[in-house]
Amino acid sequence: MTQPNKATPAQGAAPHLEVIPLGGMGEIGKNITVYRSGDEIMVVDAGLAFPDSHQMGIDLIIPRIDYLQQNADLIKGWILTHGHEDHIGGLPYILPRLPKVPVYGAGLTLGLVREKLSEFGIRDVDTDLREVQMGDKVRIGTQFQVEFLRMTHSIPDNAGYILSTPAGVVLHTGDFKLDEEPSDGRPSDLARIEQAGKDGVLLLISDSTNAERPGRSVSEAEVARNLEQLIASCKGRVFLSTFASNVHRMQNIVQIAHRLGRRVVLEGRSILKYAQVAQSVGYMELPEPFLSNDEVGTLQDQQVLYICTGSQGQPMSVLPRLAFGNHAKIALRRGDSVILSSNPIPGNEEAVNLVVNRLYEIGVDVYYPPAYKVHASGHGSQEELATVLNLARPKFFLPWHGEPRHQINHAKLAQTLPRPPKRTLIAKNGDVVRLSQDDFKVTGTVPAGAVYVDGLGVGDIGDDVLLDRVNMSQEGIMIMTAVLHPTPHVEIVSRGFVRANRELDAQIRKVALDAVEQGTREKKRLEDVRDDMYGAVRRFVRKVTGRNPVLIPLIVD
Amino acid sequence: MTQPNKATPAQGAAPHLEVIPLGGMGEIGKNITVYRSGDEIMVVDAGLAFPDSHQMGIDLIIPRIDYLQQNADLIKGWILTHGHEDHIGGLPYILPRLPKVPVYGAGLTLGLVREKLSEFGIRDVDTDLREVQMGDKVRIGTQFQVEFLRMTHSIPDNAGYILSTPAGVVLHTGDFKLDEEPSDGRPSDLARIEQAGKDGVLLLISDSTNAERPGRSVSEAEVARNLEQLIASCKGRVFLSTFASNVHRMQNIVQIAHRLGRRVVLEGRSILKYAQVAQSVGYMELPEPFLSNDEVGTLQDQQVLYICTGSQGQPMSVLPRLAFGNHAKIALRRGDSVILSSNPIPGNEEAVNLVVNRLYEIGVDVYYPPAYKVHASGHGSQEELATVLNLARPKFFLPWHGEPRHQINHAKLAQTLPRPPKRTLIAKNGDVVRLSQDDFKVTGTVPAGAVYVDGLGVGDIGDDVLLDRVNMSQEGIMIMTAVLHPTPHVEIVSRGFVRANRELDAQIRKVALDAVEQGTREKKRLEDVRDDMYGAVRRFVRKVTGRNPVLIPLIVD
Repeated sequence: MTQPNKATPAQGAAPHLEVIPLGGMGEIGKNITVYRSGDEIMVVDAGLAFPDSHQMGIDLIIPRIDYLQQNADLIKGWILTHGHEDHIGGLPYILPRLPKVPVYGAGLTLGLVREKLSEFGIRDVDTDLREVQMGDKVRIGTQFQVEFLRMTHSIPDNAGYILSTPAGVVLHTGDFKLDEEPSDGRPSDLARIEQAGKDGVLLLISDSTNAERPGRSVSEAEVARNLEQLIASCKGRVFLSTFASNVHRMQNIVQIAHRLGRRVVLEGRSILKYAQVAQSVGYMELPEPFLSNDEVGTLQDQQVLYICTGSQGQPMSVLPRLAFGNHAKIALRRGDSVILSSNPIPGNEEAVNLVVNRLYEIGVDVYYPPAYKVHASGHGSQEELATVLNLARPKFFLPWHGEPRHQINHAKLAQTLPRPPKRTLIAKNGDVVRLSQDDFKVTGTVPAGAVYVDGLGVGDIGDDVLLDRVNMSQEGIMIMTAVLHPTPHVEIVSRGFVRANRELDAQIRKVALDAVEQGTREKKRLEDVRDDMYGAVRRFVRKVTGRNPVLIPLIVD
Repeated sequence: MTQPNKATPAQGAAPHLEVIPLGGMGEIGKNITVYRSGDEIMVVDAGLAFPDSHQMGIDLIIPRIDYLQQNADLIKGWILTHGHEDHIGGLPYILPRLPKVPVYGAGLTLGLVREKLSEFGIRDVDTDLREVQMGDKVRIGTQFQVEFLRMTHSIPDNAGYILSTPAGVVLHTGDFKLDEEPSDGRPSDLARIEQAGKDGVLLLISDSTNAERPGRSVSEAEVARNLEQLIASCKGRVFLSTFASNVHRMQNIVQIAHRLGRRVVLEGRSILKYAQVAQSVGYMELPEPFLSNDEVGTLQDQQVLYICTGSQGQPMSVLPRLAFGNHAKIALRRGDSVILSSNPIPGNEEAVNLVVNRLYEIGVDVYYPPAYKVHASGHGSQEELATVLNLARPKFFLPWHGEPRHQINHAKLAQTLPRPPKRTLIAKNGDVVRLSQDDFKVTGTVPAGAVYVDGLGVGDIGDDVLLDRVNMSQEGIMIMTAVLHPTPHVEIVSRGFVRANRELDAQIRKVALDAVEQGTREKKRLEDVRDDMYGAVRRFVRKVTGRNPVLIPLIVD
């Protein structure tokens, strides 16, 4: 490096590494992490997030990638930890806007990515997907070596990684739990973490999702045992709803159904998609083929089990349609059992509650946590987080994949351990976290945040548009059209304001017209007439109704 | 009764009673229960509910009382079980619309009602509030005798009641838990329930809120012990947020602060109001006067405890303003402790989570359930519900104060007991539940439902208005104004649709103008020109943006 630029350390300085989270740091969702060493960049994941209640009408959210676009020629490679939407869901929006580089991931992960890219019409030839096995090491550019690390989670082929750089070694857990009885018999590679710890881990980046939960997470095997016991007790048809991506659970349910003499019907687009991809990469074995709903006619009720979408109450998915009687082919009835093998994701509580209440009203038997232990989180609780910290013995620590409450409780947990990290940072998206063997700090920020996807639009909705949506949702909108010629008159149209009310409309029209007539008598400019009308109506409406609808004054000259 | 009308039983028929829930049956909120016996009506409570996420912009919801208005002259009296908003919050809207009748309630309940009515400008002389003690019997009309029954809950002076009617005895628990260590030393009157059970309870109406929770609820005394231990460990200032109406807890905190050498500051309107009413009726003793925030200047940090509003994340309340740095006089700082002695009410999870995360970011120490057991529900769990069922031994059972999931689990619980009810009904608001010694069934319905209160308006917002709000919140709104003379042109204004986009605006204007020009060329009627413009723009916008904003076409001739 004979021509140092501003991103290159002065000659002789200790090598350093920059970790730049563009998503997933201080939040749960839209994970994407950038590493920069020298003049090379490596990227990890590119997820999406779902809107909160104030991001009205938004379909989904992807991370801003200005930093990557500005440094596009430095990107040497990309790795994917696993196939959940919050880690790969942003790829179809992001990959096409950046140079084609190698993208490494395990079989199921890439299978899901291929499916997703093809839905978006992105051709194979425009991407460079490279499949890896757990334990594989790949070199990315000259600065990075990545070793894929098996970690258990709620989807197969989940990886953390050990990143070797000139500055030192980073151990990133990825999303994980330490499932002691994983469905595929392959537990997290704690021996490798221990070895890395002995060799020296400069930085640990670890999953903070459940840092507030004491104890250990529940094993997927325990969930399977509880499901089997429950389903064995069901007399009629069974409808089970779970996360489509939890391929191990789906596989377990298929085996349970087979043992209990039930044929399995899959209902819902995402369940079908995951099952198909999982089969194609060898992650799902079927003792008997799936049936379609049309094929169950001759079977008795206790010979059928439906696996269906809708565990989060999403309006167009199967379980809500069943609950509200909107399914074209299937009608629930007394004697059926519905199992929610899931918990509501924060934000979905109300939608799930509506579905559950409707199921009770139909008279089906409904089973769900916590009364029935038929779901387990994919993220480790405090004992598991402590185990990783104890084995990795990092010098520096970045609690990741969590909101501030989770990050800070993870940091506090680390401080209680026998060999706490020398330094822990609570970082945010866009922070440039710079580390070397001796130093670990935030040295700057780069643009980071949310790009809203709504309908076909990506990034054409900003916070101003969302604020209008929030305001209209609270108070409605009123459009006043003042026509000046030949005789001034005013038309009022409103939506979401109050029920049709002629008397109030007439009063408002009069207030608006008075303002307009006074303005024209005084020969005011049109803009001023408009503003006068706006002000007069706003004051009147506030006084009479106590409300502040969004007001739109229009003047037709 | 020599002149029977349709509501009077045929001569010689067994006397019967009608129970008509107008709110609080199949939901949690806006409780109001109507009893009718012969030609007399008695009413219990008149609460409010808070909107769900689809009832956008609504301040609060009160029950429809068409049935009471239509039978106003039959109403002989009203009783109030306790002072929570979901039991008395509807009174200022409802009482003025009905004849003045005696309203019976305990001291704190009536204190809160008086405060509330005076806020609404309702004069004492227009109501007939009559204070009762627990154990008092009052006669209402000729048909009803009500005995007030002490039941513990999260507010003092909470009552169930035993209602004697010609048809038989109804035992209504009201909201309750069976707190074995209540703060005022006065537990639920189980002996009276047992006696009623021996004498014969025809119908039990019981609180279903926590029918899905196994075991017992936590005692208020246990919460106080945990709070004392926690506060004793805090080094700096303590800010504690809880439900203002939990007067016992506030009293306990005042005592704890005194023992720990902290002076108490109350912050927030509702905390101040409840403290003042509680003191006025003798339910709060102060070892030292409260201080105002201006008076704490000379005290050290560990000598101060603030009790503040905002445990539900309500934007204008104290704790959220502290968290977001918007409080005029108080700024949180590292070293402060914040205790949320509360749980988020369903629907408030996101707002509370935002506050909690901001508190962590400030660096204060934050304590909240479940990690810290500093809150207890006011509603009994399964063991408590079973105790009441076992003692009351009702012939008929109405699970009340719950959504269908809670009602049905309460019903199932009753069936597991040694002496289950002969019949249980899952009723809804508006059901006319008719019972006699031999029969118990729904015989009809009366109007019931929600009246929305928004700003100064009561009932002027209907579901159509709410649907407009939801639609605008999802997709925005676009107003197209076509001016026909002298030359046709179109103006487009949108809100909440997309960020300002001149090119798209121009395209839409052109599409609209084409439709208008064609319509005028063909000399179509104005309505048809408007509809053509609407249709053309809708199709174009959907195709280009994938969205369906609310479209408002205006034609100015």
